[in-house]
Amino acid sequence: MLITQPKEQDIIRAKERINSFIHNTPVLVAESLNKITGANLFFKCDNFQKTGSFKARGALNAAFSLPKSRSSLGLATHSSGNFAQALAMTAKILNVPAYIVMPKNAPKVKVDAVRSYGGEITFCEPNLTARETMLDKVVGRTDAVIVHPYDDYDIIAGQGTATLELCKKITDLDIILCPVGGGGLLSGTALSASYFGNNISVIACEPKGANDTYKSLKAGKIIPSVNPNTVADGLLTSLGQRNFPIIQQYVDDIVTVSEESILAAMKLIYERMKIVIEPSSAVPMAALIEKKVIVANKNVGIIISGGNVDLSKISF
Amino acid sequence: MLITQPKEQDIIRAKERINSFIHNTPVLVAESLNKITGANLFFKCDNFQKTGSFKARGALNAAFSLPKSRSSLGLATHSSGNFAQALAMTAKILNVPAYIVMPKNAPKVKVDAVRSYGGEITFCEPNLTARETMLDKVVGRTDAVIVHPYDDYDIIAGQGTATLELCKKITDLDIILCPVGGGGLLSGTALSASYFGNNISVIACEPKGANDTYKSLKAGKIIPSVNPNTVADGLLTSLGQRNFPIIQQYVDDIVTVSEESILAAMKLIYERMKIVIEPSSAVPMAALIEKKVIVANKNVGIIISGGNVDLSKISF
Repeated sequence: MLITQPKEQDIIRAKERINSFIHNTPVLVAESLNKITGANLFFKCDNFQKTGSFKARGALNAAFSLPKSRSSLGLATHSSGNFAQALAMTAKILNVPAYIVMPKNAPKVKVDAVRSYGGEITFCEPNLTARETMLDKVVGRTDAVIVHPYDDYDIIAGQGTATLELCKKITDLDIILCPVGGGGLLSGTALSASYFGNNISVIACEPKGANDTYKSLKAGKIIPSVNPNTVADGLLTSLGQRNFPIIQQYVDDIVTVSEESILAAMKLIYERMKIVIEPSSAVPMAALIEKKVIVANKNVGIIISGGNVDLSKISF
Repeated sequence: MLITQPKEQDIIRAKERINSFIHNTPVLVAESLNKITGANLFFKCDNFQKTGSFKARGALNAAFSLPKSRSSLGLATHSSGNFAQALAMTAKILNVPAYIVMPKNAPKVKVDAVRSYGGEITFCEPNLTARETMLDKVVGRTDAVIVHPYDDYDIIAGQGTATLELCKKITDLDIILCPVGGGGLLSGTALSASYFGNNISVIACEPKGANDTYKSLKAGKIIPSVNPNTVADGLLTSLGQRNFPIIQQYVDDIVTVSEESILAAMKLIYERMKIVIEPSSAVPMAALIEKKVIVANKNVGIIISGGNVDLSKISF
């Protein structure tokens, strides 16, 4: 278990630890999007990752890093989204129980996915206080260990493995664009880009409607999200305590984008690349559509964070 | 130019001829769909093909097989769909004009795609007679050569290269499932399965709402489609004269599926595989949902014919 920011060796070890349980996801290119942007884009496609998102990386690394004595009674978290599935799958691999607190309005498809891995779900009211109270209650009863979805150094090291893989495959990246919600993926990406890349600029991409990272970086302290509102449902959370200092140090810039651009970017990727991505993953492409990042003739990595989308809620 | 049914060598030569202009598209697997069907499914993903469908294979092979004296004044066809794009791209590669007759109600996205390859579009009324009359007029004016989308042996040989690639990669397939419209893909698939596979059963999959192939096989003669109606817009055409005898001889069985199953199959593939496919490509998976083919413990190839879908028209 890491108690300080992941070093180069920590991310390499995370990769070794989880390697046989994850996909080394493909890096796709798309001529027509290169033409539109004038850049060479390299999409690191964690929509094809186990459980449909990068969250499997961190969950596996964090759980595998726990002493057996701590994980044996089960893993617990509260999540309405991708981390719930990732932790349930991880618990199944470890052959321990998964206790997932979910808001009672969580989409059925996500509830079903957690159950398909054998996760035990406890429903609660859809607000943070209710979720935390219920999680405390569940852990009080079960003695399971709480795994935080992003504010955790082992999670950060695990999420960094996506960019480790990307940098091994594409060795001359100039820029990496990465979405930001709680900051687990972004902090891991920024560390890996610094360790395994050659002077790569890491640019965070955030919806205007959930711009707490933008505000936090400008203010120099964490400004929590208040009533965030965006179609990018993976990016509603506020920055974590452990994530923010890494982001301050290793992320080069942050840009924000409109809802309209997120949907346009999502449609463009479906139409041109023929891949299904979730709205959160379209935020970097939205930044390119809005010309918020100068990418002409650059080699640009884009982290596609996941593909778990409620298709019935998307209208193109 | 082939004047008889493609032989093994003809498909091998087609592959060599077009190889540097097409993608050897990936063969994807999906654990969760294996679990649902009890089979080992191998998806040959021509949704990732140039121009977004298998049609690029046949168009390139047919055009490259023409004597230069015939192709130099241009390539012409009437099409509202994937073949239009494929022929326009082919003409661009050959540096000759593409004359495409399209119905005036063709979706804007398809019109734009043809134009993006430099194709010259002539619009006409949306019926077969108007399309053929207009094509004759265009060819009378330009002396371009007409390339038929499926009723052509070089087209058939080109479409067969998808299954050639699949059989080289997965050497122990028991069954291949393939959608059928005009029969270009199906006849090429069946020939290749017979030449490059080991006793593979080829099963044609057709929408109930456009079941002219089903009827034709039962009747032993071509029964044209009358007012076909299906969401699988690539499968509305009637069987070709050159395709039907090949299908009679080399296809083992045909099954038909409901519209409901096609949409359910399409959603399943989007959700589980995170890939964008067009409705026509969901027809084989629909046959598995309806349990129309016995696949338990079999190795089953599924031809994903394309990914060009008007997302604004699909509601999941």
